[in-house]
Amino acid sequence: MADPVDLAGVLARTEEVWSPRTVAVVNGDYDVRVARGSGEFPRHSHPETDELFLVLRGRLTVRLDDGDVELGPGQLFVVPRGVPHQPVAGDDLELLLVEPSATVNTGDNPGELTAPRRLTS
Amino acid sequence: MADPVDLAGVLARTEEVWSPRTVAVVNGDYDVRVARGSGEFPRHSHPETDELFLVLRGRLTVRLDDGDVELGPGQLFVVPRGVPHQPVAGDDLELLLVEPSATVNTGDNPGELTAPRRLTS
Repeated sequence: MADPVDLAGVLARTEEVWSPRTVAVVNGDYDVRVARGSGEFPRHSHPETDELFLVLRGRLTVRLDDGDVELGPGQLFVVPRGVPHQPVAGDDLELLLVEPSATVNTGDNPGELTAPRRLTS
Repeated sequence: MADPVDLAGVLARTEEVWSPRTVAVVNGDYDVRVARGSGEFPRHSHPETDELFLVLRGRLTVRLDDGDVELGPGQLFVVPRGVPHQPVAGDDLELLLVEPSATVNTGDNPGELTAPRRLTS
């Protein structure tokens, strides 16, 4: 019988920040991912997809051109496709993402923090 | 500027059990839903889709033909499409679901607990 995925366990084994781990795949093409964050992530957009952020721990600011969205634990926000956004982490940020499996974390602004898709076992 | 969705707030305003509220839509066709649960939900399957359960609070048992999956807070499980499952709630269960917007809670076994899709404002 399959075991559940324990998000805290996956995050505890993840040292890098802004390096999402795919913890579940729905219907073969949607990922649920978790990531730790610290400081500022590069501003970018995803021309092809919305991106859902759910804060599990800590605080996240999503900087948008028309204002900031402030998220704490148990709060979520969907960045619409094509909308530039800059995630900025408070201390000890842990977040959950829902997005198509093909989504790259840095979207249209690749750089040092661009991460390959990594599935957890 | 858009506000985040506060999952605890939505759940606090939800009196019915097993009556999902859609709190976010991704790309127009995927829902993130929250629901409270109590006792046994009817056994059913979704022939057309996987279904992701993430426990926010309390405990959930997902009864499958080959065993039970036990979930606590911060633990998730994906029921594959077509697989019969019976969710059974511990006390004060609050859960999050990820599934296509067209998914009906009771799948192939409609009955008293079949709920229409309800979006939160």
